[in-house]
Amino acid sequence: MEYYALPIANLIDELSRLPGVGKKTAQRLAFHILEMEPLEAEKLAHSIVNAKEKIKYCSICCNLTDEDPCHLCKNTKRDNSTICVVQGPKDVVAMEKTKEYNGMYHVLHGAISPMDDIGPDDIRIKELLKRLQDGEVEEVILATNPTVEGEATAMYISKLLKPMGIKTTRIAHGIPVGGDLEYYDEVTLSKALEGRREL
Amino acid sequence: MEYYALPIANLIDELSRLPGVGKKTAQRLAFHILEMEPLEAEKLAHSIVNAKEKIKYCSICCNLTDEDPCHLCKNTKRDNSTICVVQGPKDVVAMEKTKEYNGMYHVLHGAISPMDDIGPDDIRIKELLKRLQDGEVEEVILATNPTVEGEATAMYISKLLKPMGIKTTRIAHGIPVGGDLEYYDEVTLSKALEGRREL
Repeated sequence: MEYYALPIANLIDELSRLPGVGKKTAQRLAFHILEMEPLEAEKLAHSIVNAKEKIKYCSICCNLTDEDPCHLCKNTKRDNSTICVVQGPKDVVAMEKTKEYNGMYHVLHGAISPMDDIGPDDIRIKELLKRLQDGEVEEVILATNPTVEGEATAMYISKLLKPMGIKTTRIAHGIPVGGDLEYYDEVTLSKALEGRREL
Repeated sequence: MEYYALPIANLIDELSRLPGVGKKTAQRLAFHILEMEPLEAEKLAHSIVNAKEKIKYCSICCNLTDEDPCHLCKNTKRDNSTICVVQGPKDVVAMEKTKEYNGMYHVLHGAISPMDDIGPDDIRIKELLKRLQDGEVEEVILATNPTVEGEATAMYISKLLKPMGIKTTRIAHGIPVGGDLEYYDEVTLSKALEGRREL
């Protein structure tokens, strides 16, 4: 780092804190930024500051939003008797892209992971329970990732919801469309078998 | 993009303009930035603005620097009878890391590439010629990349310098240290053969 002028070294250092950005990539990005039009670089910097300033958590679904409640929670055309529980904001976008789901969302911002010291209180489960108190919600769809952490989180939430008499469902696991049977692991295959349906 | 709040969409858009950053990576970086401590994000944005503001081209060697002349041109302990010509600021750092070179540098900021419409006037060749006028420089080492563009640039400069009576050398091409003969192409191998030296 001593080879670079301080502002360049600082920029490389800040960029290399981003996930998946190593020293080499940070250098490449830094020099690209230095060769950019000043206005373009300004816009990049501004977009960071602006996003941090404007984006908050929705007080209902905990998704990231620039208006509270978010446009999904505010939308009266959506079915508020169903809540789809996901791990992150990106999952909401993935679900929305299907255009098949018209209910509400709840973003946990993580999954239970004792290994990483993340317990039920570290993700937005309390906020979910609060939303279920008025009795309007009939079904909670658990759409956490099919990983150890996602499964544990789904199990934990379903155990909390059962005594409340709310229907709790889990999205199906199996072979993705276009997938090739031979390339999937035996756990995925057994899940696919287990979840088979009559045609 | 319509699925994201505007400040998030903007941030993703700005990030995806960076080289090697696609839509997915930009999303991942954007959500990482949104989950960062506000102060950290502020520092990232500031480092961009600060680098753009402070970093200029050195009036002597054309390298990126925060002081003019740059610390390398200013260093009186360096040998100013030799100039090493490189394509970019990163190459200066690479050369400095060898700790073998103690002369001056000249950064071209590119290489001649008719395919990309980059001619001799689009890179810092004029600035190099100006530096050679006072007759103090005895050797110019052409350390452009061993690519078609780098070679063309080296050839072009060497033809300009020959009539000036300045010694012009080209860095050696060959098998890198630790490299395995069988994995290198025939051009590299012939270069290595051509450049063989008596032991």
